[in-house]
Amino acid sequence: MHTTSIGDLIQLVSTKDQKTFLLIIDQDDKLETHHGIIKHSDLIGQPYGDVVSSHLGAEFLVLTPSISSIARTIKRKSQIIFPKDLGLILLRLSIQPGQKVIEAGTGSGALTLTLAQAVGPHGMIYSYDIRADMQELAKQNLELVGMNKRVNLKTRDICDGFDEQNIPAIFLDIPNPWDYLAQVHNSLENGGFFGALVPTTNQVSTLLEALKQAPFGLLEVVEVMLRNYKTNPERLRPSDRMVAHTGYLIFARGLTQLK
Amino acid sequence: MHTTSIGDLIQLVSTKDQKTFLLIIDQDDKLETHHGIIKHSDLIGQPYGDVVSSHLGAEFLVLTPSISSIARTIKRKSQIIFPKDLGLILLRLSIQPGQKVIEAGTGSGALTLTLAQAVGPHGMIYSYDIRADMQELAKQNLELVGMNKRVNLKTRDICDGFDEQNIPAIFLDIPNPWDYLAQVHNSLENGGFFGALVPTTNQVSTLLEALKQAPFGLLEVVEVMLRNYKTNPERLRPSDRMVAHTGYLIFARGLTQLK
Amino acid sequence: MHTTSIGDLIQLVSTKDQKTFLLIIDQDDKLETHHGIIKHSDLIGQPYGDVVSSHLGAEFLVLTPSISSIARTIKRKSQIIFPKDLGLILLRLSIQPGQKVIEAGTGSGALTLTLAQAVGPHGMIYSYDIRADMQELAKQNLELVGMNKRVNLKTRDICDGFDEQNIPAIFLDIPNPWDYLAQVHNSLENGGFFGALVPTTNQVSTLLEALKQAPFGLLEVVEVMLRNYKTNPERLRPSDRMVAHTGYLIFARGLTQLK
Amino acid sequence: MHTTSIGDLIQLVSTKDQKTFLLIIDQDDKLETHHGIIKHSDLIGQPYGDVVSSHLGAEFLVLTPSISSIARTIKRKSQIIFPKDLGLILLRLSIQPGQKVIEAGTGSGALTLTLAQAVGPHGMIYSYDIRADMQELAKQNLELVGMNKRVNLKTRDICDGFDEQNIPAIFLDIPNPWDYLAQVHNSLENGGFFGALVPTTNQVSTLLEALKQAPFGLLEVVEVMLRNYKTNPERLRPSDRMVAHTGYLIFARGLTQLK
Repeated sequence: MHTTSIGDLIQLVSTKDQKTFLLIIDQDDKLETHHGIIKHSDLIGQPYGDVVSSHLGAEFLVLTPSISSIARTIKRKSQIIFPKDLGLILLRLSIQPGQKVIEAGTGSGALTLTLAQAVGPHGMIYSYDIRADMQELAKQNLELVGMNKRVNLKTRDICDGFDEQNIPAIFLDIPNPWDYLAQVHNSLENGGFFGALVPTTNQVSTLLEALKQAPFGLLEVVEVMLRNYKTNPERLRPSDRMVAHTGYLIFARGLTQLK
Repeated sequence: MHTTSIGDLIQLVSTKDQKTFLLIIDQDDKLETHHGIIKHSDLIGQPYGDVVSSHLGAEFLVLTPSISSIARTIKRKSQIIFPKDLGLILLRLSIQPGQKVIEAGTGSGALTLTLAQAVGPHGMIYSYDIRADMQELAKQNLELVGMNKRVNLKTRDICDGFDEQNIPAIFLDIPNPWDYLAQVHNSLENGGFFGALVPTTNQVSTLLEALKQAPFGLLEVVEVMLRNYKTNPERLRPSDRMVAHTGYLIFARGLTQLK
Repeated sequence: MHTTSIGDLIQLVSTKDQKTFLLIIDQDDKLETHHGIIKHSDLIGQPYGDVVSSHLGAEFLVLTPSISSIARTIKRKSQIIFPKDLGLILLRLSIQPGQKVIEAGTGSGALTLTLAQAVGPHGMIYSYDIRADMQELAKQNLELVGMNKRVNLKTRDICDGFDEQNIPAIFLDIPNPWDYLAQVHNSLENGGFFGALVPTTNQVSTLLEALKQAPFGLLEVVEVMLRNYKTNPERLRPSDRMVAHTGYLIFARGLTQLK
Repeated sequence: MHTTSIGDLIQLVSTKDQKTFLLIIDQDDKLETHHGIIKHSDLIGQPYGDVVSSHLGAEFLVLTPSISSIARTIKRKSQIIFPKDLGLILLRLSIQPGQKVIEAGTGSGALTLTLAQAVGPHGMIYSYDIRADMQELAKQNLELVGMNKRVNLKTRDICDGFDEQNIPAIFLDIPNPWDYLAQVHNSLENGGFFGALVPTTNQVSTLLEALKQAPFGLLEVVEVMLRNYKTNPERLRPSDRMVAHTGYLIFARGLTQLK
């Protein structure tokens, strides 16, 4: 039986309203929820997939959080990259265990921790952001999920380039990725994977224009729409509302020379 | 400089029409394309991201294939799971390096090799399919990409259950997943991740009904729509046609008891 | 110059926040808005497309409302049919000036007034609803837009059938349209157009099953997704959120006999 | 009983493969199909909604065509506006029986005949196109459906403006609508409805920019996605592929002055 221990990162989900809490089990702490208080000491040694009760008798499922539920739940100061986009980024950049990846900007760290989970303990994410406050927030989020050792946070402008060389995958989540294609190409392994996310069509056009005048090939632009369904089997239907747009994803491969 | 060697799995992409070929570089082989012949010996020692020419002078980019381009390119005898869905499956099942995963059926192996890449060399995929011909095809596809050691193919009906226990994630891509929830629950780690893909709404309803009467929680039903754009920056617009539907993805968590 | 007169139905749109008001110009009335009061007497003789000011100096565009803005703005007690669906219904039922149409239920009247505008002063809509309160609300909405003479509201259960015969188009917006196919067929002109809207996939299946066992042909099931864009030309992008689902539209033609 | 007569426009739909034919019943003509020959004389006096047989025994439903099936079936030399967009255009331009409407260009006439049906016998469509061959094709299509008297086709460049004044609705389906906003405003009733369709995001941006510098208000940009479902009630699911994009629809209202 898989049971909880002190130091585990767990997810508590209210069986009433699916409200979700992330926490690391401590000896003496307690969690205050809208449905009552749960003492951490009551959370030790619980089987995963079981329920615990608050002092008001409200029930909560005890689970290990998925990476996508973590990405949705972390503290944020900026628009995060959504799980619908994170999955495609992992695939299109062909992220693998043990790999090195560069990203900029770090933001609140949703992509950072997704990449960190995907490369595993033998990989490394180099994550650049010019804003110290975002780096601090990302650091806290990474520590919460125990992935800080897989991420090298660098509080720096990227106009002078990245410190690393021959990196197989680089992702830019910044307003003007076209301004840094030389820096990307300089640090990207030849043939490597490049990706970016921008919210507007004008930015997509500007980035495509720049990519066509630089040594990049196999350009792709995609958008992902995800629709959730209500889970009543006798009244199956999509939810009333959905996220209509987060951003456009652009992918390309680094070439040895202009095509 | 990252260069090709004998034994490398590479992707050749025609610069004329983006037609793509997957191959493992051999000493003596040759590739026949619609734009001419390429000798494997000409492919040895090439920088990745560079171009090679066929005997007719047609140019091809030399690249390492991404896992999503592999999944789209493999030989198939059945409908494969599309990259748009593969990314979300990795995230929602929270697949990690070193992990064990069960899937059934194997099919042509698109999900199999995606899972195999994600768990890395220290993980293991247990992949069940009742059809020996599908298992043989998947075996060839896995060997092509060098991931056969990470996958244990089992040509077996799953009505008697899976051989493994305490597996953190199980995915079913079969017509009647509701018939195997007891087997899934028996092999799933408590609190573990369950997923399934079914093409029709009737199947979604039947599966939801079964999940609600079994020890599973946090049910989710989603569909992913992916829209590609043409990459002309001065005439940015979506492609004319798109895949409208592959299937509905259902996710749930294994509980210790009925909720 | 097209100018306003007493009795005109007009739409006032705040230039600040696009908040919209529908009203019929009276001699002595006044409109209270969140941006100040507008006397109806100040609205008489204004050119359409011009602005008027409230007593606080806030500006409002004076316009004739479009049928789709009316449908979005009317008082409602129930989920209305959205403009995205209304347009397709008009086309698929091939609604024409001078035509007769049956609908049930009336609901808040969004489809009723759209049909009434489309058939014009020489057409007639027969609109059935079992709930007197809905009929009363629809009556008020129809009077507001001056279309009450084109609509015959009938507060009645439709289990005993419709009073009219040989109607070229019938639309059902009720939870169980399959229970009334005999009644529909009895009142539908041979070869006529039938349509229905239901929110769940289970209802779609039940309705399709019933249609296949009755003298109907050319079955169609469609859903319409409408995505709005923000109108900043330098930052063109879809709105963040959208309506994911209202209902599935089912269309069929009445046949003379079982196929 | 509603029966066919000489001169009727009818739609024949193969019960085997749903292939559709539009024709006007003549005394002596015959229709050659892939499933055999049908003599027009056999089509006279048939009940609508009934079936007729070809000389090979293949069955065809006899129906009046809907406006959307006509729009899909007409001969074309250019990309037509799709039914999914036509419905929304009718609603957003608030087209009514008896109304006058201007459109440019005419193209193959899909929007022209949809507008002509919506305004009815007392309305009038003024349709401009610089290409005489398109006008000739549209004329044939309009004659086929008996709506040529409701449409005034003008083979002319619109750079010198439209002949008509105070028109309540104007729609442009041309590559550079921004070049003709002065002409549109000059012929549009104050407060009137303007619409345009353009395929690329760059065109949307250019048109929005121009509209913001001209006396237009209430700008809207929308795209319509329509998804068809297979009609098997026991295996309900969307079709595999769909139209991903036709164009972006832009709507605005004519104002009396710059806002």
